[in-house]
Amino acid sequence: MNRQGILIVLSGPSGAGKGTVRSHLLSSDHSITYSISTTTRSPREGEQEGVDYFFISKDRFQQMIREKQLLEWASVYNYYYGTPKEQVMQNLARGTDVVLEIDVQGALQIKEKYPMGVYIFLLPPSREVLAARLKSRATDAPEEIDTRLKWSEREISMAKRYDYLVINDDVHRAVDTVKAIITAERCRPYLYNLEETWFAR
Amino acid sequence: MNRQGILIVLSGPSGAGKGTVRSHLLSSDHSITYSISTTTRSPREGEQEGVDYFFISKDRFQQMIREKQLLEWASVYNYYYGTPKEQVMQNLARGTDVVLEIDVQGALQIKEKYPMGVYIFLLPPSREVLAARLKSRATDAPEEIDTRLKWSEREISMAKRYDYLVINDDVHRAVDTVKAIITAERCRPYLYNLEETWFAR
Repeated sequence: MNRQGILIVLSGPSGAGKGTVRSHLLSSDHSITYSISTTTRSPREGEQEGVDYFFISKDRFQQMIREKQLLEWASVYNYYYGTPKEQVMQNLARGTDVVLEIDVQGALQIKEKYPMGVYIFLLPPSREVLAARLKSRATDAPEEIDTRLKWSEREISMAKRYDYLVINDDVHRAVDTVKAIITAERCRPYLYNLEETWFAR
Repeated sequence: MNRQGILIVLSGPSGAGKGTVRSHLLSSDHSITYSISTTTRSPREGEQEGVDYFFISKDRFQQMIREKQLLEWASVYNYYYGTPKEQVMQNLARGTDVVLEIDVQGALQIKEKYPMGVYIFLLPPSREVLAARLKSRATDAPEEIDTRLKWSEREISMAKRYDYLVINDDVHRAVDTVKAIITAERCRPYLYNLEETWFAR
């Protein structure tokens, strides 16, 4: 069976735990490829070039916009974030499922162009937990945390535009739920060619 | 959170293993209620009244049709099969997820009236396995098996009208897949009231 790959978009506000869920997901399902985003923000502690992000300059980013090399891009808190298009499309065409980890703006931008993707909104369990998670990121300045909290609330009101909503109260449970969603999406009838498989003589 | 129940329709051709998958599913997830169908056919060995089916007379069945007490009904191999409406609707209204195990005709009939249900098509792995399964049912006469096989092939061509297609090559794997589908469907954003939960102060 030679099916098209599934595009899985893992999204949600800052502090929802997208990165942790994504890394657990990838280490437990090796059939999924992660498509690394590109950004103009500085690496956080422990983040590696070409693993977590491609960290590039503002000039280079603007060039990629002009040359339409991005599937989506957004400017968030004065930084650019974007998804290089070529790698994603190649993987989907050869039948590899691809996971993207992107902010709400970017996810909804892709959803318009690629509605057959699977759009998952990760939700922090409460406003208190979200605030605590943002504060624990020592790299963010206090005023940045406030901006992020307000922005997050606006983003959460967009959850209903997604296919799935996963509450990240426990990372292992959230990962299991995301895996169940992927298992379910792999059962979509349009991914099967019954004429070629079941009915072939 | 007081959400509406999810209607899960487990369907597929005779010999797909609907009954086995359903019973494993129900014994591993006690939050789901099974809605017992009613039929005019005789009980197979081991089948119990009020557990597997309500076995009723043709006269009584026709009365239920006239009084619109059935969510769907069909005549298959000269027997009537149907789903009593009242119990299903009461369970969904009180937030209980309900599983139905029905033939393809009946499932597609319900899908027209209730598109927000989750329609799962169970597929035997091959024509050979399907034939062997039908033959192993000692209660069915040989000519009945032939009729069922031909009918099954017609039904399999309708799999694309379902939400999900699950290949039943191994019952435990098929049950796990159905459970993953239910987990995923419980994450649909319209089941959540974020205004009442996340945004409530």
